[in-house]
Amino acid sequence: MFKGRNLVNAIGIPGWLLLIWVGGAYYSAFILITMLIAMGEFYAMAEKKGAKPILGVGLISSVLISYYFHTQPIISPNQIIGFIIFLILITLICELFSNNKNSGMNIAYTLSGILFVSLLLGTAIEIRQFDSRVGTQLTLTLVLSVWACDSAAFIFGTKFGKKKIFPRVSPNKSWIGSISGLIASMIIFILFQNQGWLGNYFSISDGIILGIIAGGFGQIGDFTESLLKRDAGVKDSGTLLQGHGGVLDRFDSLIFATPLTYLYIHFLMEF
Amino acid sequence: MFKGRNLVNAIGIPGWLLLIWVGGAYYSAFILITMLIAMGEFYAMAEKKGAKPILGVGLISSVLISYYFHTQPIISPNQIIGFIIFLILITLICELFSNNKNSGMNIAYTLSGILFVSLLLGTAIEIRQFDSRVGTQLTLTLVLSVWACDSAAFIFGTKFGKKKIFPRVSPNKSWIGSISGLIASMIIFILFQNQGWLGNYFSISDGIILGIIAGGFGQIGDFTESLLKRDAGVKDSGTLLQGHGGVLDRFDSLIFATPLTYLYIHFLMEF
Repeated sequence: MFKGRNLVNAIGIPGWLLLIWVGGAYYSAFILITMLIAMGEFYAMAEKKGAKPILGVGLISSVLISYYFHTQPIISPNQIIGFIIFLILITLICELFSNNKNSGMNIAYTLSGILFVSLLLGTAIEIRQFDSRVGTQLTLTLVLSVWACDSAAFIFGTKFGKKKIFPRVSPNKSWIGSISGLIASMIIFILFQNQGWLGNYFSISDGIILGIIAGGFGQIGDFTESLLKRDAGVKDSGTLLQGHGGVLDRFDSLIFATPLTYLYIHFLMEF
Repeated sequence: MFKGRNLVNAIGIPGWLLLIWVGGAYYSAFILITMLIAMGEFYAMAEKKGAKPILGVGLISSVLISYYFHTQPIISPNQIIGFIIFLILITLICELFSNNKNSGMNIAYTLSGILFVSLLLGTAIEIRQFDSRVGTQLTLTLVLSVWACDSAAFIFGTKFGKKKIFPRVSPNKSWIGSISGLIASMIIFILFQNQGWLGNYFSISDGIILGIIAGGFGQIGDFTESLLKRDAGVKDSGTLLQGHGGVLDRFDSLIFATPLTYLYIHFLMEF
């Protein structure tokens, strides 16, 4: 009954929601595992372009970044800068003593993979952790909002979509689909805020902005992932999730929406 | 009388020393200008590999990073992470709406250039600024130590060097030259510490370690720069400094030695 794509949905969706609910180390470990697989996929796409990123540096950095977001220790800006410096120098030294070609690309992809995959996805851990109540509600709404966006974009886009929005990058996506997705995202956030399911911290205008982040910037994340895949000449970032493509494909909207939510709650709401 | 290479020496060496002495905004501006040119050279090398990094993002980031190191404002780790997230997303969005090929490489080189050039060189501003007395003395000793390393390595390497140290990357460098360079660096630091020119904060063991950083890791920076040039198929990173090559060539040792000195004084000496 449940095979391939459907099996992934049948296990993945309730599993994901359960992990958001349980939170703590379970959710952080889930994001870390996602991050490690996504890093492997990102580096595999880099290899299609002739690079050979240093996987060990990427994976160890992912663990450290996840640990930082999970525990949120009180550290100084100098310590963060020190960690980044250490990371850069280790990458350069590893590359120097390797025998690989295209050194510049190897260094560039190694470091940018850590920024793009680990740092951006790592904010998902931070958001879930930063306050147990708000973290659960916000994470849940964000994920549901992105799903609503994807579904609405697919349904309305397939049915009514004519004028393409970004054919150079994503030939199938239409304006109708994108706008429907954005509206669906905003509806989820506004509804949740209105019903009090988002917690007391968020006003209606916060709900509208977070809906735009999830639906609007989430779709920009989707386009960015398409751009990277098109550049690497692959259809999916990986094959792990059967009909869903790779892990990066599944998280492409969240990879943009989550860090922007992090920026919004930390800086514009002054949490 | 003074032409080309000699002219650069005649103006460059006293000018550099004067700027270290004067410090403040003058020295920070000098490092920033160096950084901007070095960024241009790094991105030009990337273009030899088929990438088209986003120069504007690199240059604006350099200005912001320099400003941060110059003023050293009291900010939270979240603000640093927020800045990095903002930088990643801006880079991705700029690339998405550009029409360039090799998007993955463009993103990777743009971000890694900011890390490699701006962040590593930016620590030179921080070291000079962090305490007016110690900053002057430490910066001066570091620069003289790196110069002593280069000179000793050249003199002894040319005269006695037989066994090559790293022929795959730098065909001309010999073990004798490298060891002579390291010893010369250490002599400068130990001498300055011993004479009290380095300030009271540093013990003799600090002097030895900083000498190893300048002479040992400085040479690793030199090899790394050679690796990048070899990969890009260029002899010099640029032509601005006549017989001295490009700005990155001149700063290749400091690009490693300075951030390691920063790490040492901030974490191991607990400044």
